[in-house]
Amino acid sequence: MGVVVFSSHSLRSPFSTSPLSLSPLRPPLPPSKPPQISFSTSSPQMDPQIGGSSKRFMDFPYVSAPHRDLMVELVSTMESRLESSLLPCTLPQDVQYYHNHTGTAHACLHIRSGLKPSLIDFMLGSWLHCELPAGALNITSLSTYLSPLTDAPNFLMELIQSSPTSLVFILDLPPRKDLVLHPDYLQTFYEATQLNRHRQLLEKIPEVRPYSSSSLYIRFLVSPTAILVRIETGGTERMEEIVRHHVSSIAKEVLGTWLDWCACGERDMGEADRDYVAKRDRMIKQKTIEIDLGSSLPRLFGEEVAARVLAAIQEVFN
Amino acid sequence: MGVVVFSSHSLRSPFSTSPLSLSPLRPPLPPSKPPQISFSTSSPQMDPQIGGSSKRFMDFPYVSAPHRDLMVELVSTMESRLESSLLPCTLPQDVQYYHNHTGTAHACLHIRSGLKPSLIDFMLGSWLHCELPAGALNITSLSTYLSPLTDAPNFLMELIQSSPTSLVFILDLPPRKDLVLHPDYLQTFYEATQLNRHRQLLEKIPEVRPYSSSSLYIRFLVSPTAILVRIETGGTERMEEIVRHHVSSIAKEVLGTWLDWCACGERDMGEADRDYVAKRDRMIKQKTIEIDLGSSLPRLFGEEVAARVLAAIQEVFN
Repeated sequence: MGVVVFSSHSLRSPFSTSPLSLSPLRPPLPPSKPPQISFSTSSPQMDPQIGGSSKRFMDFPYVSAPHRDLMVELVSTMESRLESSLLPCTLPQDVQYYHNHTGTAHACLHIRSGLKPSLIDFMLGSWLHCELPAGALNITSLSTYLSPLTDAPNFLMELIQSSPTSLVFILDLPPRKDLVLHPDYLQTFYEATQLNRHRQLLEKIPEVRPYSSSSLYIRFLVSPTAILVRIETGGTERMEEIVRHHVSSIAKEVLGTWLDWCACGERDMGEADRDYVAKRDRMIKQKTIEIDLGSSLPRLFGEEVAARVLAAIQEVFN
Repeated sequence: MGVVVFSSHSLRSPFSTSPLSLSPLRPPLPPSKPPQISFSTSSPQMDPQIGGSSKRFMDFPYVSAPHRDLMVELVSTMESRLESSLLPCTLPQDVQYYHNHTGTAHACLHIRSGLKPSLIDFMLGSWLHCELPAGALNITSLSTYLSPLTDAPNFLMELIQSSPTSLVFILDLPPRKDLVLHPDYLQTFYEATQLNRHRQLLEKIPEVRPYSSSSLYIRFLVSPTAILVRIETGGTERMEEIVRHHVSSIAKEVLGTWLDWCACGERDMGEADRDYVAKRDRMIKQKTIEIDLGSSLPRLFGEEVAARVLAAIQEVFN
């Protein structure tokens, strides 16, 4: 699970009960903001604009201002709080930014591995823009996996915008232990942190509906306080208002909770505990590639680009 | 988790986000059928009608005909298919049927332990009727826990009727392993059995809404194909129609799946696997008592009755 994972997952709609429901009747949508990237069908390695990949990642083009502001703030907060544990992003330039041959799908990927030993396994941010027959799809996401030095939950956020008036909002601290067998873990990270109140707040907004992944594995991966909602508004202004006033404040608060409660220190774990957590983490990463990226990336970006990006992600995952 | 568990849980509303939301404005509701039980405030042991407790359990009084028919059919199917593995119900008479001193709350409990060794730990059925200030509450339920000779999922069904036009329907095969770590288990019991289609069918009925437990532990206990819905209709006829045509057929089909796929034979498990499953099963039973029955039973039935019923359940759980 992670940014790219959920993003690409979403392309096959693991969070909905039917194939990605971009209405075939909807005309192609213009980007909500003029693209800041020039499309090139030449090899990305040769793209003269590739130099500032990290800046390009932080551009979060195409999405609305409140959406972009939120992503920039979350990534900045995450990086500044975890800076001492993070290595620089060392992905190849043509993985930090990649696109398909026709320039209809392009994406930025930003992965920073954690120093060893540290609590951080890696931090992963991404954005993706696809012009699909039914309209433009924009996905932005941020997630951080912790290392087996702690069993505390990971962080995961993803915003999937299939039109300016339709947004799927996924926010969770996915558990790294079986909560049924470890009710103390549930108490520490989910009950004491009152994470459920965010979900309850969102449920009061009339435009918000529950959102269910079509992947049973993904459904079980998230915590019982996970936010998985679809927001459908009558107009773009109302969507921007909801993102600015509700989505943003909840996302920032949950990130704050995660930084304070989960990413803050080692946990008292025995050797067997660490082995168990490491094994579970490995399984999640493996399933993520298997269920998700391995099928959706080739479809959107072609075999060659997908193979390159997958290989780079696999390297971080291992 | 189990019949009584979910029943009593529901009294503190583990499946909703607020205390049991029986509107304080709603007048007390008459039973939907004249009670077939005479209430006595004398000791239940002395109740001359107590003899036929098993028959009394199968009466499922107060609920609508389609609701009662469904419960009778499910219990009969379960008992006839598992008969060779089930011991008779040996609960004390005053636990098989119990009530509070004022006769406003009464319940039947039917537990049959599994033969040892067999795949069955125990089967538990119950009904409960409470006259609350806001109206009558009727809960009927059926669950079967399997033994550590298999790691296959348990069976759980509960119908919580807080008025003739409001019904919470809970149906699941709760997993007995961590699905994140065991995707093959997810594949065998949830994907190959296509359990998700029942949930998808129900979602198409306009009166059906998702239902969320207020207990995070319960939320995590269920499978990703769990049916947790609230049905609210404009009238009793429509409710009976939904129960007859949708709830009943889904419940019978899921029970059939469970009998064929889960209760059908030992699974290839090592010693460590059996220990793990036994430990997880114990934790679920312990949490069930702790979160749920230990607080709700005394409130509804008084300390003395609650202590008696809890002691009998504990004995089966251990």
